[in-house]
Amino acid sequence: MINITLPDGSVRQYDKGITSMQIAQSISEGLARNVLAAEVNGQVWDAERPIETDSNVKLLTWNDEAGKSTFWHSSAHLMAEALEALYPGTKFGIGPAIETGFYYDVDFGDQEFSSDHFKQIEDKMLELAKAKEEFIRKPVSKADAIEYFTEKGDEYKLDLIKDLPDGSITFYSQGGFTDLCRGPHIPNTGFIKAVKLMNTAGAYWRGDETRKQLTRIYGVTYPKQSELQEYLRVIEEAKKRDHRKLGKELELFAFSEKVGMGLPLWLPKGTALRERLTNFMQRAQVKAGYEQVISPHIGHKNLYVTSGHYEKYGKDSFQPIKTPQEGEEFFLKPMNCPHHCEMYKVKPRSYKDLPVRFAEFGTVYRYEQSGELHGLTRVRGFTQDDAHLFCRPDQVKDEFKKVIDLVLYTFGALGFDNYTAQISLRDPDNKGKYIGSDHNWHLAEKAIIEAAEEKGLKTVVELGEAAFYGPKLDFMVKDALGRKWQLGTIQVDYNLPERFELEYTGSDNLKHRPIMIHRAPFGSLERFVAVLIEHCAGNFPLWLSPDQFIILPISEKFEDYANNLSNELKNSDIRGLIDFRDEKIGRKIRDAEIKKIPYMLIVGEKEAAEGTISVRKHGVGDLGSLTIEEFKQQIIKETTV
Amino acid sequence: MINITLPDGSVRQYDKGITSMQIAQSISEGLARNVLAAEVNGQVWDAERPIETDSNVKLLTWNDEAGKSTFWHSSAHLMAEALEALYPGTKFGIGPAIETGFYYDVDFGDQEFSSDHFKQIEDKMLELAKAKEEFIRKPVSKADAIEYFTEKGDEYKLDLIKDLPDGSITFYSQGGFTDLCRGPHIPNTGFIKAVKLMNTAGAYWRGDETRKQLTRIYGVTYPKQSELQEYLRVIEEAKKRDHRKLGKELELFAFSEKVGMGLPLWLPKGTALRERLTNFMQRAQVKAGYEQVISPHIGHKNLYVTSGHYEKYGKDSFQPIKTPQEGEEFFLKPMNCPHHCEMYKVKPRSYKDLPVRFAEFGTVYRYEQSGELHGLTRVRGFTQDDAHLFCRPDQVKDEFKKVIDLVLYTFGALGFDNYTAQISLRDPDNKGKYIGSDHNWHLAEKAIIEAAEEKGLKTVVELGEAAFYGPKLDFMVKDALGRKWQLGTIQVDYNLPERFELEYTGSDNLKHRPIMIHRAPFGSLERFVAVLIEHCAGNFPLWLSPDQFIILPISEKFEDYANNLSNELKNSDIRGLIDFRDEKIGRKIRDAEIKKIPYMLIVGEKEAAEGTISVRKHGVGDLGSLTIEEFKQQIIKETTV
Repeated sequence: MINITLPDGSVRQYDKGITSMQIAQSISEGLARNVLAAEVNGQVWDAERPIETDSNVKLLTWNDEAGKSTFWHSSAHLMAEALEALYPGTKFGIGPAIETGFYYDVDFGDQEFSSDHFKQIEDKMLELAKAKEEFIRKPVSKADAIEYFTEKGDEYKLDLIKDLPDGSITFYSQGGFTDLCRGPHIPNTGFIKAVKLMNTAGAYWRGDETRKQLTRIYGVTYPKQSELQEYLRVIEEAKKRDHRKLGKELELFAFSEKVGMGLPLWLPKGTALRERLTNFMQRAQVKAGYEQVISPHIGHKNLYVTSGHYEKYGKDSFQPIKTPQEGEEFFLKPMNCPHHCEMYKVKPRSYKDLPVRFAEFGTVYRYEQSGELHGLTRVRGFTQDDAHLFCRPDQVKDEFKKVIDLVLYTFGALGFDNYTAQISLRDPDNKGKYIGSDHNWHLAEKAIIEAAEEKGLKTVVELGEAAFYGPKLDFMVKDALGRKWQLGTIQVDYNLPERFELEYTGSDNLKHRPIMIHRAPFGSLERFVAVLIEHCAGNFPLWLSPDQFIILPISEKFEDYANNLSNELKNSDIRGLIDFRDEKIGRKIRDAEIKKIPYMLIVGEKEAAEGTISVRKHGVGDLGSLTIEEFKQQIIKETTV
Repeated sequence: MINITLPDGSVRQYDKGITSMQIAQSISEGLARNVLAAEVNGQVWDAERPIETDSNVKLLTWNDEAGKSTFWHSSAHLMAEALEALYPGTKFGIGPAIETGFYYDVDFGDQEFSSDHFKQIEDKMLELAKAKEEFIRKPVSKADAIEYFTEKGDEYKLDLIKDLPDGSITFYSQGGFTDLCRGPHIPNTGFIKAVKLMNTAGAYWRGDETRKQLTRIYGVTYPKQSELQEYLRVIEEAKKRDHRKLGKELELFAFSEKVGMGLPLWLPKGTALRERLTNFMQRAQVKAGYEQVISPHIGHKNLYVTSGHYEKYGKDSFQPIKTPQEGEEFFLKPMNCPHHCEMYKVKPRSYKDLPVRFAEFGTVYRYEQSGELHGLTRVRGFTQDDAHLFCRPDQVKDEFKKVIDLVLYTFGALGFDNYTAQISLRDPDNKGKYIGSDHNWHLAEKAIIEAAEEKGLKTVVELGEAAFYGPKLDFMVKDALGRKWQLGTIQVDYNLPERFELEYTGSDNLKHRPIMIHRAPFGSLERFVAVLIEHCAGNFPLWLSPDQFIILPISEKFEDYANNLSNELKNSDIRGLIDFRDEKIGRKIRDAEIKKIPYMLIVGEKEAAEGTISVRKHGVGDLGSLTIEEFKQQIIKETTV
């Protein structure tokens, strides 16, 4: 008999050689029907693999990331089986699960292939899935493995095998298909109920441009047809909401090859949006006792030698800026903290002066390979809503709570109401690799946990996920499409105060090191705006909207009334424009809807006579007739953040 | 007889060989007493030098820059004469006039010398000046010149002579002193009535570190003792107002060697001041139809190859930023215009869309040698209140007028009420060296002249001072100490639209090039703040002042009242702080005066009971008792820009 410990801590006794699937069945048949694999002592195993010793077992279903990943990896095998059936002689490279779905790199030899064949392959996969073919694991010797794939004539698998040590090799078979594979896999192909091949791409064998280019086929599968449909709907919707597309349509930002890839140009409407976000954060920060500062976008090499960035990132970053004389070297700043440390040092600080909170909308530059760049989410220059709080150990908890308040206030104002937080702490078994005293770490970790608790945050705690310089708290938000984004981070730092020799005079009249907290609720303005665009599909909260209204005169006759109305609204800080074009009102409305302008104000004979406006709301429709005053009040109410 | 044309255009006939001094005497004895030299056909001559041909003659007095400069050059000779008398055997390097005063580089040999000797030298100079020694010009052959200084043993003059062509050499003598000199000089030493030696410095002969170091003695002289006194007073006052000193005392900005020389760190109070200036300009610009944009601080090499900056400035600028892969090269942006040109190009423009006005508070970086750096006036990174107007030829005049309005509004709000403007036009004799059509230049120059005229600007027109790419209008302001600063510039540009191939579709449906106007009312925020600090001696206009009030409670008992008062003022957007220290009220007032806080609000028994405040104004004194409401109203009135 062996002891099996389940995630809830309960211990059950089973015969040696029991499988996770049998354990599931001993709990409930319903559970067993959903088990895809199991985590046994921290490793993902086949559900049908016998367990020989006392073990911790976590049954994995579709709701677990590892369960999904196993499902998709098995789906890659299923696709290979189908391909082999449809295209005999096909050779296979690698076929892993990815974030959503899977791919397989395939060599079709002389056989023709295009995405026109997708339907046929999908049908074949579903046919094979219906047969509920079991995935069977089989350890093989290196010699046998080589023999098998030599016979089959698959040079790619042979290339993979040659790097594997004997004794570590396993094959997996389902139906008539056998693959070199470490596993694990789902019990059988029958779990796969919905299949969609997405696209193909060229992929050099082992990423080496000098070797053969294979065809990478991407696909995704689901245990239910409805889940696949929902996924495809989200993808379609995500395409419509793509911030690169909307950014262009709404004239928010642009890129220019001449200026350089990954360097956004903020156009007038985008700048106005961004400035509104900046002002919003600035007002909130001033209220919270922050002081705004401004530092240059470059720093002398010495600054980064002191901070440690030079040694750590120097080679992979934008290279140094040399001077034409005097032999100095500067770097584009990758972060604002070293500059803020130097500002802290401009005068002596006393314990009474702390916390000192320096905030800066600081634009930083980091090199990314051009292939990694993506709209505003992955750029080479971005502006952080950065701040550094220099505080005493006894102030850490209170500062954390205030920052949490600020982050949640921000999420609320921007319509992100679905978020969680992750607390990243030290690896308790490896305390040596962190800088800062044990006492301070203990205090800070306790402070973060308590602060999160007192603020009622939903948190997960991850041991060993802290940075070497301090513990941290990260926020994850789910957007309207259910996609997760990391926004907002709060980090404790013991490292920079040490490296910059920051000090304050304590009440004991002795010198102490302050603790530094880095925090950025938006993170990067670029990335935040991208997420916001996709979250709200370009229908920004009214207070952020580049134009809040558009006045649509029925004809030229009502332009005076339109102008007066526009001026009156602008005097109340309500912004918008007038559509003076000589177009039919229907066309004007349609165009305004495309531009996603929140309020369309239609003015004609009746409105001009009565001093009213006929109000239409974007995406909603006709709101009827309002007086100018009523409309103003409604806008003011709606824009109060 | 020859014809002499005077600056007013009048022509007088004189005998050949007449001198400028004699011409002056023929006009008035009073004028002659003030003539220092004369400009004859564009060259400055001794007033006693005979004129042999028909000539244009402008008599130069102390009121002319060239008159002052001649006066100070002659003063350098006078100092040399005094030094030779006091320190026989002294050798002389060069002794030019400078912006204010003069210097002479001197080799005292083995003789001891320090600034303790200044008084003795000044006295000797005044004694020699009283003798009214005439400056006598004498052309000499190269051989004679070499013989004279060989005999005298002055290797420096010999070194200078060896580079001069025979026939070009002149000596000037006054009293017993003779110098190698091109001239011109004032008639005699008697004009010099006030003398002050300022300081000494080491100066390598011919600026070459491998050669002998001479003693450079700086001095200044005046035709009246009172003018010297005024000059010395201004210098003293300027020292007190030095923005580097006040910037530190008021905690506005700082520099750090680690961050890099010439890269300002804006501290909280400085940032607040700067942001207020920025917001002020932004509001004014929005009203004037500008659109705010944001561009990155670097640009790809291709951008600057296109703009022409690469070829023109590449070698003397901050060197390129290379990427660790992909072999790209970026540059710190030295100006914002290339980025704005790319923004103009993001979509097609029609004649109806113009003018497009892109404004950006853009931080640019330009390499300056470390020795040239000076506080905020000469830095390596600065933020321009930049904008580029893209307009049709027929819009240039109107745009110029609007920019003039904006510049004058700015000067008014900041207390600069003494300004002039310079219009820089093409050299009409050398039109080939300018880019852009003759027709467009004519239009633009006419537009600028008319715009300035219609706005009632005091202007001077300088032919040949235009940039090769267009004419311009520059503003010069005089600060409270009478020093002149160039602030505010408006430039027409035909070059960049050409290089970037900017276009708009005209009403004729054909493609046309827009005209670009660069303009920056502040110029650079850094330099502007420096000038402003020195202009107002740190006593900023109330709307800009970092803190507008400081509440001084008589004792701890009145802290609650102070807190309530502070909150009430803050709610009305009046900013300030409370002096909670346990200090006597006299001390609190003194400290607040040093910090130049505009309003001190003293609260004690009586004020708390009556709900009033006892108001004291910085630099003015007691204003008596006011209710909180009265005080608020006064501040609101005073801060309305």
